Amino acid sequence: MQNKLDRRAFMELTALTALAAVTPALGEETHASHLQSMMAPDPTAPKVAILVYPHMIALDLIGPMSVFKIMRWNMQLIWKEKMPVVTDVGISIPATTTFAEAYADPDILFVPGGLMGTIACMQDTTVLDFVSKRGARAKWVTSDCTGSLILGAAGLLQGYDATSHWAVAEHLPLLGARRVDKRVVRDRNRMTGAGTTAGIDFGLVLAAELGNEEAARRTQLILEYSPEPPFGNGTPAEAGPERVAAMRKRRTWMDAQARLAAEAAGRMLKVR
Amino acid sequence: MQNKLDRRAFMELTALTALAAVTPALGEETHASHLQSMMAPDPTAPKVAILVYPHMIALDLIGPMSVFKIMRWNMQLIWKEKMPVVTDVGISIPATTTFAEAYADPDILFVPGGLMGTIACMQDTTVLDFVSKRGARAKWVTSDCTGSLILGAAGLLQGYDATSHWAVAEHLPLLGARRVDKRVVRDRNRMTGAGTTAGIDFGLVLAAELGNEEAARRTQLILEYSPEPPFGNGTPAEAGPERVAAMRKRRTWMDAQARLAAEAAGRMLKVR
Repeated sequence: MQNKLDRRAFMELTALTALAAVTPALGEETHASHLQSMMAPDPTAPKVAILVYPHMIALDLIGPMSVFKIMRWNMQLIWKEKMPVVTDVGISIPATTTFAEAYADPDILFVPGGLMGTIACMQDTTVLDFVSKRGARAKWVTSDCTGSLILGAAGLLQGYDATSHWAVAEHLPLLGARRVDKRVVRDRNRMTGAGTTAGIDFGLVLAAELGNEEAARRTQLILEYSPEPPFGNGTPAEAGPERVAAMRKRRTWMDAQARLAAEAAGRMLKVR
Repeated sequence: MQNKLDRRAFMELTALTALAAVTPALGEETHASHLQSMMAPDPTAPKVAILVYPHMIALDLIGPMSVFKIMRWNMQLIWKEKMPVVTDVGISIPATTTFAEAYADPDILFVPGGLMGTIACMQDTTVLDFVSKRGARAKWVTSDCTGSLILGAAGLLQGYDATSHWAVAEHLPLLGARRVDKRVVRDRNRMTGAGTTAGIDFGLVLAAELGNEEAARRTQLILEYSPEPPFGNGTPAEAGPERVAAMRKRRTWMDAQARLAAEAAGRMLKVR
């Protein structure tokens, strides 16, 4: 039944192409305008080049993507090959686009986080070369969570304010960035978000910058983003030093790997 | 290089199985304990049966899953066949488990939202039969966003308090539920979350109920969930009546389909 619905929808969409010019964009919704708005790409919308990679954090990608999608921006999920990349929650997400096929001049370069995957990217010259070159041409260079360590290792944060996941943000200066303890940090055309869920805040801030504030506000309502965390425990300051120390002890090896990777990348970049 | 790392990790994991019994679960992290904690399933952890379906909302799934994964709960992504189901952001998520293979007695039944996909499920007797039967055996019956309409159409919310995405929550009484305007609503063993991003709050509340509060608090910090939406525009009340009316006008057809589906399901359930 689902397949039948899909076939019908695509046939109707084909018929709609001819009507698109006369459909009032802001009028009352009909079945026809619903299908059009859901499915017709807008070639004039911003082009977002998104790096995806093995062992990334799914929510780091899906939070911002949900905002970008409602804004109707065009997105590429980019990796070395069009292969599925496994994420922290066990779901594999297929890359849609290779490095060679990626937008030459993206409006936005966006790099999500994923700690062990981030560390692998920080040591991978093919990845760093791609990020560095696209970052130099993009209008906006952005990340959330540990993704800023990849931007940094690619040399894109030297002399910029930036943030990252709380557990690794202290390594940003090794890559020439100034660490700023805020949830979303903007410095000229760089915008970085803090850990995982900060990607939603980051996405809305970027949407307001690039689109218009009214569209960003509507996007927030569509996502019903009026958060009520059950505890006040979302930052190290809120969690308190004892709990943070106990948690850090359980990730000493992983965080040490991040430091080593940042030190090595900093040496390559000749950061003092 | 990634493949080489993965192969090595799996070989080391195999060697680790013998060591697992002597590894101190709360001690300082080593490479060995990192691999173990990332990769070894815990068969005593709660079993979560998650319905996935075509045209679902990716963030409705990934928000709660991110919490469940850090809690190390066991998850099945369940659909009619082990096929990829397309989501709102264009990413297809593969179902891991068929209806026939799903946990017979799940600790948690969880149904995410996705409006047009939700409506299709509400009209699909195979889906409703599965949800109804597993819901009757699950310790917890849960949803976020429009997923509560599927629980309701399966007869699982009759006489219960519940919530849903703001645009369709008014249809809950057609399914015998009492609509409650809160972000996370618990009534006995039913727990429902409001629209999309409420899934993160829902996940943390459920984690505190089922696991322990300390684990839920640590999960919140790992996700750095200390939200700072750039606008106060996440509920209809915050957005104001004019903006809501303008937005509703652009989704009249879709919301009417939801009402028709709820009315039809209510008639089947003989809700007065």
